Amino acid sequence: MKEVSIIGASGYTGGEALRLLLSHPEFTVKQVTSERLAGKPVTTVHPNLRGLTELKFSSSAELEPCDVLFIGLPHGKSQSRFEEFSSKAEILCDLGSDFRIPNPERYAEYYGEPHRAPELLPLFTYAVPEVNREQIRSGGHLSGAGCIATCSLTSLYPLFASGIVREQRVFIDAKIGSSASGATPGAASHHPERAGCLRSFKPTAHRHTAELLTYLPEANGLAPEVYLSATATAEVRGILTTAQLFVEASVTEADIWGVYREYYGQEPFVRIVKDRRSMYRYPEPKIVKGTNFIDIGFERESGTDRLVVLGAIDNLVKGSAGNVIQALNIRYGFPERLGLEFAGLHPV
Amino acid sequence: MKEVSIIGASGYTGGEALRLLLSHPEFTVKQVTSERLAGKPVTTVHPNLRGLTELKFSSSAELEPCDVLFIGLPHGKSQSRFEEFSSKAEILCDLGSDFRIPNPERYAEYYGEPHRAPELLPLFTYAVPEVNREQIRSGGHLSGAGCIATCSLTSLYPLFASGIVREQRVFIDAKIGSSASGATPGAASHHPERAGCLRSFKPTAHRHTAELLTYLPEANGLAPEVYLSATATAEVRGILTTAQLFVEASVTEADIWGVYREYYGQEPFVRIVKDRRSMYRYPEPKIVKGTNFIDIGFERESGTDRLVVLGAIDNLVKGSAGNVIQALNIRYGFPERLGLEFAGLHPV
Amino acid sequence: MKEVSIIGASGYTGGEALRLLLSHPEFTVKQVTSERLAGKPVTTVHPNLRGLTELKFSSSAELEPCDVLFIGLPHGKSQSRFEEFSSKAEILCDLGSDFRIPNPERYAEYYGEPHRAPELLPLFTYAVPEVNREQIRSGGHLSGAGCIATCSLTSLYPLFASGIVREQRVFIDAKIGSSASGATPGAASHHPERAGCLRSFKPTAHRHTAELLTYLPEANGLAPEVYLSATATAEVRGILTTAQLFVEASVTEADIWGVYREYYGQEPFVRIVKDRRSMYRYPEPKIVKGTNFIDIGFERESGTDRLVVLGAIDNLVKGSAGNVIQALNIRYGFPERLGLEFAGLHPV
Amino acid sequence: MKEVSIIGASGYTGGEALRLLLSHPEFTVKQVTSERLAGKPVTTVHPNLRGLTELKFSSSAELEPCDVLFIGLPHGKSQSRFEEFSSKAEILCDLGSDFRIPNPERYAEYYGEPHRAPELLPLFTYAVPEVNREQIRSGGHLSGAGCIATCSLTSLYPLFASGIVREQRVFIDAKIGSSASGATPGAASHHPERAGCLRSFKPTAHRHTAELLTYLPEANGLAPEVYLSATATAEVRGILTTAQLFVEASVTEADIWGVYREYYGQEPFVRIVKDRRSMYRYPEPKIVKGTNFIDIGFERESGTDRLVVLGAIDNLVKGSAGNVIQALNIRYGFPERLGLEFAGLHPV
Repeated sequence: MKEVSIIGASGYTGGEALRLLLSHPEFTVKQVTSERLAGKPVTTVHPNLRGLTELKFSSSAELEPCDVLFIGLPHGKSQSRFEEFSSKAEILCDLGSDFRIPNPERYAEYYGEPHRAPELLPLFTYAVPEVNREQIRSGGHLSGAGCIATCSLTSLYPLFASGIVREQRVFIDAKIGSSASGATPGAASHHPERAGCLRSFKPTAHRHTAELLTYLPEANGLAPEVYLSATATAEVRGILTTAQLFVEASVTEADIWGVYREYYGQEPFVRIVKDRRSMYRYPEPKIVKGTNFIDIGFERESGTDRLVVLGAIDNLVKGSAGNVIQALNIRYGFPERLGLEFAGLHPV
Repeated sequence: MKEVSIIGASGYTGGEALRLLLSHPEFTVKQVTSERLAGKPVTTVHPNLRGLTELKFSSSAELEPCDVLFIGLPHGKSQSRFEEFSSKAEILCDLGSDFRIPNPERYAEYYGEPHRAPELLPLFTYAVPEVNREQIRSGGHLSGAGCIATCSLTSLYPLFASGIVREQRVFIDAKIGSSASGATPGAASHHPERAGCLRSFKPTAHRHTAELLTYLPEANGLAPEVYLSATATAEVRGILTTAQLFVEASVTEADIWGVYREYYGQEPFVRIVKDRRSMYRYPEPKIVKGTNFIDIGFERESGTDRLVVLGAIDNLVKGSAGNVIQALNIRYGFPERLGLEFAGLHPV
Repeated sequence: MKEVSIIGASGYTGGEALRLLLSHPEFTVKQVTSERLAGKPVTTVHPNLRGLTELKFSSSAELEPCDVLFIGLPHGKSQSRFEEFSSKAEILCDLGSDFRIPNPERYAEYYGEPHRAPELLPLFTYAVPEVNREQIRSGGHLSGAGCIATCSLTSLYPLFASGIVREQRVFIDAKIGSSASGATPGAASHHPERAGCLRSFKPTAHRHTAELLTYLPEANGLAPEVYLSATATAEVRGILTTAQLFVEASVTEADIWGVYREYYGQEPFVRIVKDRRSMYRYPEPKIVKGTNFIDIGFERESGTDRLVVLGAIDNLVKGSAGNVIQALNIRYGFPERLGLEFAGLHPV
Repeated sequence: MKEVSIIGASGYTGGEALRLLLSHPEFTVKQVTSERLAGKPVTTVHPNLRGLTELKFSSSAELEPCDVLFIGLPHGKSQSRFEEFSSKAEILCDLGSDFRIPNPERYAEYYGEPHRAPELLPLFTYAVPEVNREQIRSGGHLSGAGCIATCSLTSLYPLFASGIVREQRVFIDAKIGSSASGATPGAASHHPERAGCLRSFKPTAHRHTAELLTYLPEANGLAPEVYLSATATAEVRGILTTAQLFVEASVTEADIWGVYREYYGQEPFVRIVKDRRSMYRYPEPKIVKGTNFIDIGFERESGTDRLVVLGAIDNLVKGSAGNVIQALNIRYGFPERLGLEFAGLHPV
C-alpha cells in the first residue's frame, strides 16, 4: 500500500482525488490538509464521504512523509512551495497549472507573469496517459493537465500525429460546467446568475491554449494553430469540446476510424462514440459524469473538407484527479483501471 | 457466482439493476430482455455501459434458467406472467408494484382494479432491509418497494416503532425527479415542459401511500394515517421527503437521536445527517445520487410539538434496484455492502 | 406622473421594482440608490435593462423628495432609518420584513430580537391586495409581504375566512427558488452546491410563519396553527406551496370552488387552476415567472377529510415588488393591472 | 386594428406569436387553428394565457379571411398549402422553413428533397429586419428566419458587409435550448435524457447554414464559407452563437465597434454588449429570454488575427415570432418596438 497525502484537500479537485483514493485498493490516504478547516472532518465540505472516512483536515505544517503527495492549491502556490513539498514525498502530483507548460516564455505569455521557478519545469511530466504514457512510466513528478486541454488534446492528438489533418489550424469551442471554477463563491458563480447560463467567459486567450500548442504534434510540418473559445454552462460537471479542422477531400470517415483505432485501440479509458442513429450517437459529458472516460466522436462533412471532432469528459475526473491517478497506476505498474472503474450513471 | 437475468432491462430500473450487477463480484449477468430491442446491444439505450459489456438484449421467449430473475416490467405484467418467470429462477426480484401490498383490498383501493393473482401475494417479501431484514433473509421472492415509500418508510419507521410519535398522523411532502416516471417519453416529460418545473403531480391518493399504511407500525395503538403529496421537480434522480408529525412536548432532539441510534446504529446504508451549521446540515438527494444510501435528518420545532423528518435517496438505487441487491446480499449471506460501495459525487 | 425612487436598488427585489416601474405608465423613476455602486449605471447589475434606461445609482445621501419611496434594504435597516426615509416621500413601500408583523412580541419571537421601533408598526399596511384591499386603499405606508407568506396566505385565506376548514391546523411545504435569498453570493448559493439541489433550509421556525399566524383568520373560532417547512430548489424564480388541511367529510370540490369564486371571483391576479386532465392541471411556478399572477389549485382527497391546496407565484413579482405595485395602483386609483400585464412565457 | 389568424397555433412558435399578438395594440387575433385541439381553449396547451383570452382552437377548414396569416406548421406544409392560405390573407407570415432559401438548388441540397413550389420562392421576403428592412417594407409575404441563422447572420452581417473580415471562412458554434425542437415529445427530448445535456445534435450540415450562405455578403469578393456546428443544451429558450473569423492584424476593437455603430446604431433591438469587467460583459441568452433583443459582443484576440463574435437571442422571439412581428410593424408603418417592449428578467 502506497501512502498518499493531499495538500489543499478542501477544494473540488483535491476532494475528488480524496474520493477516488479512498476506494483505491493500492493507496491509503494518510493526511489531507486545509489551513481553514484544520481539525474539522473532511465531511464538513465533502458530504458524499460521510460514513466512509473519519479523516480530519490537518494543517500543511503537520505534513508527514508519504509516498505520493497530491497538491490542490490555487495557481502559483506549487512553484513557491516546491521544496517543502518535494521533501515529503517521492512523487508530487500537482493538480494546478504551475508545471504544465515546460516553456517559460509560453507560460509567461498565457499566465501574464514570469514563472518563478523555471528550473523546476523539467522535473514534471504532463500526465495525459494517452499522449504521454512512456514519460509517465519512466519517472518524474506529475503535473495534471488543464481540463479543457485534456479533452481537446486527447481527442485531437491522433489526427495531428497521424498527419491526417490538412491544415495546422483548429477551432475549438469548449463548453464547461461550474465545478471547473473551484469551490470559492463569487458573483459569477452565485446561483441566480449562473443557473441556466450560457456564458462566454473566455472567448480568446484561454490559458489551456498554451498546453495545446505545446503537446499537439505538428501537422504536416507546421506548428499547430489553436483557436479556443470557452463557454460556461449551467451544468456542474462536464466538458464538451467541439473542434473544427480540415482534412484532404479524399479522407473518409473510415480513414478517421482507422486513425483512432491505431492510436487508441488499446486505451482503457477512450471510447470512440459514433452511432448511426440514436440520441447517444456522439459523446456527451453527462454520460461520463463521475468516470475517467473520455468519449470521442467525429463527423466528416460531406461537400466540404471539414472534420468536426467531439470530446466529452468529467472535468474533475478525467480532466483532473482521475487522470493523475491513472498516471500513478502506470507509474507503479498497477492495472491501469484500478480505482477508476465507475461506469457512470444513466439517466442522470 | 450466481447467475442473474433481467426481464425488461431497457427501462430505467432494469438498466440500473444491470449497471449495479455488472460490477457486483458475486453475480454474473446472464440474459437481459427487451422485446423491442431484441438483438441490439444494451448500450443502445444504456450508453454509460459502453466498453463495459458486450451484452445484447434477448426476447423474453429465449429466457434460460438462472438463479435470480429481476423483473422491470410495467405495472400489472408480473402478476400475469408469474408462472413463466418463477419456472426459470429460484428468486424473483420484482422491481414493479405488483407484489408490494399483501392486502388485496388495499391494493384494489389504490391501484383502481382488483389484483389478478392474490394467492401469489404471500410469496413475496417486501425488500426494505431496514424494516424487514429477517423476512428477507428467510426466503421468498423479493418485491422492490416504491421509491417514495422506501424513502418515507425508512426515515419514519423508528419513530413509529419506538412509540415516540404522539399522533398517528403524518404529513409527507415528496419531491421527486423525472427518472421515477420511466423511460417512455410523453407530453409531461417533454423537456421544455418538465425543465425547471415544480409540478404537483399527485397531491392526493398517491399509490405509495398504500405501502406506508401497510408497513408503518401502529403509533401508540393507533393505525398510522398517512397524508402524502408528491411534487415533480426538475432533477433527474433523487427524492426528498419532508414529513411532519407530532411528539410529546417533552421529547427532545437527543431523544430522537437515541431512537435512530437504537434502530439504525448498525445499518450499512443509513446515515443520520444533522449538522449544527453548514449547508449540508440536512439530507439532500444530490449527495446520494448513484449510491445506495438513505440520508435521514430531523428537526424538533421549539415552541410547538412538531417534528420534521427528512429523507433523501436516489430513486433508482436505494429507491429501486440498489435496495433489492442489498436484499439479495442479505439472502445469500454476502457482505451487505457488496457491489453497492459507490460513495456519490460532490459537487454534482 | 408620480415620482418614485428606490433605496437599495442593486438587489433583486429593488431591481425588480425598477424593472416594473420603468414600464409603468403612471410612474417615473427618479432616483435609485446603492452605496456600493453610486455613480455606476443600473445596467451594471441589471443587464436586462440595457438600452431601456440611462439611470445611474446615487448614494442615499443624495436622495431628493419624491411621491413614493421603495426600500429594498437588508432586514433591520428600515426600522432604523424610518425618519430619514419618511421625510422624503408621502408613501414608503418597504420590500423588507421590518414592518410586516404588527405585534412586537411575535416579531421578537420569530426574528430573534426586539423590534427597535414598535411605535411605527401601526403606520404600515400589509400589502396583500387579496386580503387587505380596503386598508391598502385607505392609507398608510406599505409593507410588502414575505414571498412564502404571500403565496400561502393568498391561497389559504378564503378557506379560513369562509369557515370551510374543520381544523385550525395547516401543514405547508414551500418550495422556493434561489433568487429569494438575494443577490449576495455565499457558500450555499455557490452554483456547484446549489445547482440541482432539493435542500431543506428551514424545516421549522420559518419567519414567514409569523405573517400567516397574523393574517390568516380564525378557523371556527380557533386561532390558526401553521406548520411550515421550506425547501430550496434549483430554480431561480418561483414558489410552490403545498398546503394540507382538513375539511368536513361532506365538503366537496364544488364547495371549494364556490368559496374561491366568492372571495376571488373579481381578483385581477388570481387564477384558479384546476383542470381535469393535462399536465397543467395544477398551479406551477414556471408558468407565472415574471408575472404578478398567483395561481391557486386544490384537490379534495377521496376517502379522507384532507384538502390539498397549491399556490404558485414568482417570488420577486407577486411575492415582492409586483404585489406592492398592485397595492400602489389601488391606493392611487389606477387600474389595478396597470404595469403588471406581462402574461408569462411558455415554454420556459 | 389588423386582424391576424394563426395556422398551427398549438406549437411553440405559433403559441409565441399568439402571446405577442394578444398584447399588441394594433393587432387583434381572429382565429387560431389546430386540427388536434379544435374546439378546445388555447390555454389547454398555452397555460400562460389563462385569464387573458377566451380563444379556442378552430380547424383550418374554418379559416376566415384576415389581414395577416401566421403559419406555424411542420416543414413542407406551407409549400403544399400556399394557395389555400394566400386566398385568405394579404400577408402570409411563415414561421417554418419552406420559403427561406430563394435558390431551389441550395434548398434541395440542405433539405434533402426538391422544393415542391419553386415558383413561389420569389413571393417571400426573408424577415430579418437588420439586414433586410427595405425589402420587408416594400411588400411580399414574410418568411421567418431560422433561429440559429437569425442569431448568426445578424451578429455577423456588418463584419462581412463592411469588408472588415479578411477571410471568407467563419466557424460558428451554436448552443441552443430545447424549445427549438418543437412541442412534440420524443426520445431525445424526454426529460431524463435531455436534462443537463450538452449534446452535439448537428455537428455538420445544419440546414440553417443555407440561410447564412444566402444572406451573408461576400467578404472581399469571396463568397462566404460557413462552418456551423450545433449543440443542444439543457436550457429551454435561448441561443448563443460563438463565431470565429479572421481580420487583418491592424484591425482593432475600436474598428469593430465602429462597424457595429455604423450598421446598427439605430437598430431598436440590437444591443452591443461589451463591458470591460463584470460577469455580464458578453451577450448571454438568459438575459434576453422573452424579449426581441439580439445582444451582440466580440473580442479581438491579441497575438493572433482572430475575432470572436457572440450573439444571443431568445429562439422563439427574436429567433421566430418576435422578429416577424417586428417585420410586420415595419410593413404597416407602426412603431418598430410596438408589442415587443418586454425588457426581460433578471435574475432568471
